[in-house]
Amino acid sequence: MNVLREVEMPGVLVDRQLFRSGMARLAAGVNIITSAGANGRCGFTASAVCSVTDDPPTLMVCINRGSQSYEAIKANGILCVNTVAGAHEELSMRFAGANGVKDMETRFAGGEWQELVTGAPSLAGAVVSFDCRLSHQVAVGTHDVLFCEVVAVHTSEDVEGLVYFGRKFHRLSA
Amino acid sequence: MNVLREVEMPGVLVDRQLFRSGMARLAAGVNIITSAGANGRCGFTASAVCSVTDDPPTLMVCINRGSQSYEAIKANGILCVNTVAGAHEELSMRFAGANGVKDMETRFAGGEWQELVTGAPSLAGAVVSFDCRLSHQVAVGTHDVLFCEVVAVHTSEDVEGLVYFGRKFHRLSA
Repeated sequence: MNVLREVEMPGVLVDRQLFRSGMARLAAGVNIITSAGANGRCGFTASAVCSVTDDPPTLMVCINRGSQSYEAIKANGILCVNTVAGAHEELSMRFAGANGVKDMETRFAGGEWQELVTGAPSLAGAVVSFDCRLSHQVAVGTHDVLFCEVVAVHTSEDVEGLVYFGRKFHRLSA
Repeated sequence: MNVLREVEMPGVLVDRQLFRSGMARLAAGVNIITSAGANGRCGFTASAVCSVTDDPPTLMVCINRGSQSYEAIKANGILCVNTVAGAHEELSMRFAGANGVKDMETRFAGGEWQELVTGAPSLAGAVVSFDCRLSHQVAVGTHDVLFCEVVAVHTSEDVEGLVYFGRKFHRLSA
């Protein structure tokens, strides 16, 4: 990690509310991130997921260090990024903790799951699932960026995509 | 940067083609990343942009170290992330280097630009623009992840969003 410059840069930072309302305007796919290990299955919904490089094939996931799943994912060293389909809108709300669903097995009961390579739960009917091993992590403020190397990819054909934009879900035809 | 574990993890990595075809199924907003400095203006189109944390308000941009804009952005220490609207489809292709448009001023000629705080070009009519200073960077394979602190946010109302999914553009109503 290189600090680019130590001289004073222009401007003060925007406040959190302005940042969040701006970010609500950056459209993003909806993902359920899952893991499994000695303490069972866990998972949460995330839109802060993106490709990093195809050499080596790596994506990244941002996670709040206060998240219920954070310690388990770090300990397990594996995770599956399930990019959900239009049909998974309710499931993704459940994994976002809507209606107070904190119990992991209750979250998982709403979907159909399989395993690819690592053993992390892969969601049947997801637009795409990336089965990953963690390679390294970087802390930035309240969050960690998890860099994940991809060991398996599973896709489902003829499913609609799901995008979050303007604080609403939108469905996309492939 | 912490290496999570040094023991052998399951599986070999997927090949680049499989990774890329999987990533084409992760919907993402379309952004034109711009900068300005001693060597003039530069910019490129990126979908690998996401929120990191609101404390401090930080987003990240992945950039290939071979990109024409890479050295300039690093030297300038500032950039603007312009999340483009439906009307900017042709402009975003131009900043992606389509039809061989490598000359920067030719790219910029296709849009209307203003300045917020840092002096990086902010696109008029973008869904949202985040004016940023670089805080630090992390190298992963062929790419750098640029962590950017947000010093100004500008939004335009009543514009359609633009999403890239399944190797096609899709327009979204806000």
